[in-house]
Amino acid sequence: MKIQPLADRVLIEPAAAEEKTIGGIIIPDTAKEKPLQGTVVAVGHGTKDEEMVLKAGDTVLYGKYAGTELEHEGKKYLIMRQSDVVAVLA
Amino acid sequence: MKIQPLADRVLIEPAAAEEKTIGGIIIPDTAKEKPLQGTVVAVGHGTKDEEMVLKAGDTVLYGKYAGTELEHEGKKYLIMRQSDVVAVLA
Amino acid sequence: MKIQPLADRVLIEPAAAEEKTIGGIIIPDTAKEKPLQGTVVAVGHGTKDEEMVLKAGDTVLYGKYAGTELEHEGKKYLIMRQSDVVAVLA
Amino acid sequence: MKIQPLADRVLIEPAAAEEKTIGGIIIPDTAKEKPLQGTVVAVGHGTKDEEMVLKAGDTVLYGKYAGTELEHEGKKYLIMRQSDVVAVLA
Amino acid sequence: MKIQPLADRVLIEPAAAEEKTIGGIIIPDTAKEKPLQGTVVAVGHGTKDEEMVLKAGDTVLYGKYAGTELEHEGKKYLIMRQSDVVAVLA
Amino acid sequence: MKIQPLADRVLIEPAAAEEKTIGGIIIPDTAKEKPLQGTVVAVGHGTKDEEMVLKAGDTVLYGKYAGTELEHEGKKYLIMRQSDVVAVLA
Amino acid sequence: MKIQPLADRVLIEPAAAEEKTIGGIIIPDTAKEKPLQGTVVAVGHGTKDEEMVLKAGDTVLYGKYAGTELEHEGKKYLIMRQSDVVAVLA
Repeated sequence: MKIQPLADRVLIEPAAAEEKTIGGIIIPDTAKEKPLQGTVVAVGHGTKDEEMVLKAGDTVLYGKYAGTELEHEGKKYLIMRQSDVVAVLA
Repeated sequence: MKIQPLADRVLIEPAAAEEKTIGGIIIPDTAKEKPLQGTVVAVGHGTKDEEMVLKAGDTVLYGKYAGTELEHEGKKYLIMRQSDVVAVLA
Repeated sequence: MKIQPLADRVLIEPAAAEEKTIGGIIIPDTAKEKPLQGTVVAVGHGTKDEEMVLKAGDTVLYGKYAGTELEHEGKKYLIMRQSDVVAVLA
Repeated sequence: MKIQPLADRVLIEPAAAEEKTIGGIIIPDTAKEKPLQGTVVAVGHGTKDEEMVLKAGDTVLYGKYAGTELEHEGKKYLIMRQSDVVAVLA
Repeated sequence: MKIQPLADRVLIEPAAAEEKTIGGIIIPDTAKEKPLQGTVVAVGHGTKDEEMVLKAGDTVLYGKYAGTELEHEGKKYLIMRQSDVVAVLA
Repeated sequence: MKIQPLADRVLIEPAAAEEKTIGGIIIPDTAKEKPLQGTVVAVGHGTKDEEMVLKAGDTVLYGKYAGTELEHEGKKYLIMRQSDVVAVLA
Repeated sequence: MKIQPLADRVLIEPAAAEEKTIGGIIIPDTAKEKPLQGTVVAVGHGTKDEEMVLKAGDTVLYGKYAGTELEHEGKKYLIMRQSDVVAVLA
């Protein structure tokens, strides 16, 4: 079974987390959030207001708190609105 | 008697809850909510701004706090706006 | 005298409350509100943005906190926007 | 001098208050506000988004906290947007 | 030099305050604000969304907290959006 | 180098502050903010929703907290949306 | 690999910070934020509502808290909506 995002949502497989902390508290140098990286797995059909520009296979950057987590057939995904994706790596 | 959702709402029969906790507090690894799964039972006629793409029988994922609970003829349902459904399993 | 709702409002006669509590506090199993049932008594003429689909006589479900209470000739009514009605029983 | 409401506002003369309390605190049975009754004295010319359907002489119901109080030539009025009027008695 | 309000703003010369308090605290009988009276001195050219219906010389009523105070050549004015004017006395 | 405001923003050189306080706390007679005066130095090209009516050289009034401060070649400026300018002195 | 901003976003390489503090707390003379300077590296394709006017190479000013930080191939960038850029230096 395949997950088909609705409207202007995209399904993203997050890249393996690289940011590890070894036994300590990290004091960030700024309050700004760094976006995370992932791969688009499926996209919705868009809406009147939001045409889809992303496609499956795109490597994307998205905000740390963007989207909703989702587990499907043992894998973790994120589903979010296309407008929460800030950039594509091309 | 049949429940006919109004406007861009959908009536969903939630899947049997799978997430059980045996005598303990679950400490979630992230603050992100996992969507739940259910089956669309009936859909509204849409609005000027929201055309209906879901139909009865669709298996859908929706946010944990989406919609309003509803009991009808001994069964539990959820009624929510189509835009609160994040994906369909196809 | 008859109450004519304005714009996209509907006048609803709530069904007799069925949820009684006998000397005790109810601890709801979820935080979600259950909609209540009533009968549409009169509807407004709609607005540019909201066409009326409900009509007098419809049995409807609406959110627990929807609308404004109203007493008229000894009877209790609720007046609310059509968009606060979640479903019609048909 | 006559008060001419601007835009989509209506000028209302409130009906004499009927709800009196004699030496006591009223514990309302619900948290919902009951609308009050009044008579439309003058209406604005409407706006692009809101056509006027009320006219002088209409008996209307409006929310308890709707509008702004106004004293003019010794009489008390309320001025509010037409959309704050919930129903007309006809 | 003349003050020309921008967009849908109007320049108002407030009427002399009539509400005086002699050595005491006023306990208002309701929490509703009474509008104040003034004379329109100049109006903007309007916007796409708001056509000007007020003109210089109009006696108007406006909310107590509407607009921004302004001193010009020793006189006090208020500048506010036309939509903050609730009525004109005609 | 010249600062070119984007969209519907204007660049303003504030007039020399006239409101000085000598060794004391000012207790304002009202809570309303008085607008400040300045000279438009450059304007953006406008947007679909906001046509530019201000031009370089205009003497304008703007809210005390409007805009963003900016230092350029030793001079202080404010950059703000045209809609934050309340009036022009003409 | 190249970062391609989505929609109406721009990728900015911040100018080297000039505001240093040597062993002390800075007490700003006003509460207003000063914009920072940077160079546009890449721009999105715009949206229906926001046409792109910025282009790669533009020197721009932007609010201190605008955008999201991003590290790519050892360099720090900011990605923000074009509307968060307040001016271009030309």
